[in-house]
This record gives sequence, C-alpha cells and structure tokens, in this order.
Amino acid sequence: MENTSPLAVALISGGLDSMVAAASMKAAGYRLLALSIDYNQRHQVELAAARRIATTLGAERHVVLPLDLRAFGGSALTAEIDVPKQGVGADIPITYVPARNTIFLSLSLGWAEAAGARDLVIGVNALDYSGYPDCRPEFVAAFEDMAALATKAGVEGDRFRVHAPLQHMSKADIVREGTRLGLDLGMSWSCYDPAPGGVHCGLCDSCRLRAKGFEEAGIPDPTRYAA
Amino acid sequence: MENTSPLAVALISGGLDSMVAAASMKAAGYRLLALSIDYNQRHQVELAAARRIATTLGAERHVVLPLDLRAFGGSALTAEIDVPKQGVGADIPITYVPARNTIFLSLSLGWAEAAGARDLVIGVNALDYSGYPDCRPEFVAAFEDMAALATKAGVEGDRFRVHAPLQHMSKADIVREGTRLGLDLGMSWSCYDPAPGGVHCGLCDSCRLRAKGFEEAGIPDPTRYAA
Repeated sequence: MENTSPLAVALISGGLDSMVAAASMKAAGYRLLALSIDYNQRHQVELAAARRIATTLGAERHVVLPLDLRAFGGSALTAEIDVPKQGVGADIPITYVPARNTIFLSLSLGWAEAAGARDLVIGVNALDYSGYPDCRPEFVAAFEDMAALATKAGVEGDRFRVHAPLQHMSKADIVREGTRLGLDLGMSWSCYDPAPGGVHCGLCDSCRLRAKGFEEAGIPDPTRYAA
Repeated sequence: MENTSPLAVALISGGLDSMVAAASMKAAGYRLLALSIDYNQRHQVELAAARRIATTLGAERHVVLPLDLRAFGGSALTAEIDVPKQGVGADIPITYVPARNTIFLSLSLGWAEAAGARDLVIGVNALDYSGYPDCRPEFVAAFEDMAALATKAGVEGDRFRVHAPLQHMSKADIVREGTRLGLDLGMSWSCYDPAPGGVHCGLCDSCRLRAKGFEEAGIPDPTRYAA
C-alpha cells in the first residue's frame, strides 16, 4: 500500500533543535526528506550526528549537500576566527554565518519543489535564538512570501509552508518536547568547537544554551562536556 | 589611493544577460565581485565563458562555487531529461530549475554581507523571461524584503538592493545595451545543449531567444549555431 502522507523537507543540522523540529513533524504525520549542508563547518562531528538522526527518524532520503561557504568568509563557524567562550551576549555573535538560513531554506525549497513537497521544516526558535536575525518569526514569514513568487508551484497556486515548530520555545521547552517524543537527545550535537576526545566543549554559546536547557527542564543531561 | 566605489556581487552565468547586467553596474560605478555557480549544469562551457567575462569586466574576485543540484533532480538542465528543441512555448519549461534564482541570490546575499557589499546584480528580464517564475519583478522585490529581515546588516538598518537592470528589456534591447557598452557579446554562451564542436545548438529556447535578439536589434550575431 502506498504511503500517502505528505512529504516535508527537514533541515537536519545534527543539533538538538532540528532533531526535535523534524521529530515533531513526523509525529504530526509527515514523511521526511532530510537535508544536511556540509558547509565545511568546523564542527564536522555535527554531520555524523545528522546521519544518525535522519536514520532514527526514518527519513525516506537523506541528502548531505557539500557547499563550501568558506569561499565567502565572514563567520567564526567557517573562517579562521576564534569561537568565543566568554558567555552568551546580547549582540549578534561572530558565529553568525551571513544569510545561512536563507541559503539553507532556499536549498530546501529547491528540493521540495522537485520532490512535490510543499512543507519545509527548520528548527529555529525565538527565545534562545542567540541573536541570529534569520531565526526570527518575521524572517520565516518573509521567506514564505518570497517562496510563493519564486516557484512554479507557487505560480500554479500552491503555497509552500515553512514550519518552525520550536519558534516560541525556550531551550528547556525543546528538551521537554524531545523527551515527550521519546527521542534520545544524546544523539544530537550542539558544540561549535569540539574538545579533544570528541566531547562538547561546554564553553561556547551553543554548549551553554544546551546545558541550561536540560537544567531548566529538570531532565538529566546526557551530554559529556569537557568543561 | 584606495578605491572607494561601492562593491556589488554580480551573478555571472556566462550567458548574455548576466554579462550585460554586470557590465551596466560597472558602468554605473560599482566594483564587482563575480559569482558563478557550478551546479553540474549540462552546459559546462557556460562556466568557461563566465571566467572570460569576469576577467574582461575587471571583477575584483571571481568565485566559482560548486553546488550539486542533481541531488534534488527535477530539471532538464540538471537531470537526465531531454532539452526541448521544438520552440519557445507559453508554459513554464522543463528547463526550469526549482528555486534556482532564490538559491543563487541567497548565496550572493551571503557573500555580499561577508564582504560588506549591499548590492546584488542579476540578469533576469521580464519580457523574454522564457516562463521562469523567479525572473519576475515581484519575485525580485520579495527577495529584497526577505533579505532585510534575514541579515545582520538588515537588522542594523542597511538595505540590500537587488539590481535587475535588464528587468524590462527585451533580448533585442539587451543586445543593443551590450553593444552600447562596448562588450564583445560573442564571449557569452547561451546554449542549453551544446552541439559537437562546442558551438550553440541553435534549437533550444535559449539559442532561439539569443538569435532573435540579435536579429531584432539589427546587430550582426557573432554566434556560431549548428542549426
């Protein structure tokens, strides 16, 4: 019997947020096409986590797309700039990759249109968004409006939807939601600057937000941190 | 003496339109960063043309970014589908690459933000747009609105502008404009399906529009067509 559930293209970074976002779409009845971008991030271990997560969530296909954003420079995640360890600040951090979510959603849109999917999934969230402009609800809405005009499917009357199911969740909410969905959250990877032994550094923004999320959720943190 | 002219990121496909669009930005006083996407298009000869054009226009840098859109399928330009030769129709053709201009402009936006540029250039045009939805003015406007929300520079009050100087030109207008700018238009490549000997096939939509443009402009066509 053919499975007639709708298809959704889910960006899977290997991190906690995209894992929970994709899992919640699956729980809502979608079949998943998993997309990971190999942008020569410093933290290649993320991609190994992405592969495990795509398999665990039963994605029908997982594409790991090489895209070398180092040609453009401009971020501590892709260029030769130190990842900051002094704590989460109020400004847009230097780990911001210019237009990253725009690029990643555009690639999702291309795959979605080619595969007949009308739904995209991204794990952005507003509360713990760590200062990235392209994680805000107004960005997601503007992307949907643009997608309607950009595509053959849009011209023919279909609407692409960008699902951001974690949009209004704190990291603690996300930890709770992942736990409720029965996920092994230890499978995900958050650290921007892995410590020797392949463990989370415990000091970068992403590690700090992760640890705080488990703590505030009152759920044991399966992560091994170096500090 | 430092050159303080503004920088613009110009998408250079190797075709006629993007060559004239970039040249008109240069004529308007912009310094150019040239971006070409190697998306495993069938017509790799386009990229050789892009390199010649970037050099001729004096681009400060030329990045040829590999991006394998074949992973997504869905177009005669990237998948194993025959390029149609029966003439230009009214519908969106199967040479349409899902979300191509969205993806290419998003990559331009990333480079622009990293390089401190606020201007993007694309050679889309509305009259001879051959049915592609992402060549329309309303798409370009929606992309600008999205870019303002997507970027650190946008949040800080800058506006990214997408220049589409050929937007309202016919192919004949573009041939005239290129000639007025003193360009060697024979340097550009339009054909989707090169014939043996590395010449334009003369039958695909893109060849037909090119030949018609020179004819209607009353300017000798330097192109060698197989048919």
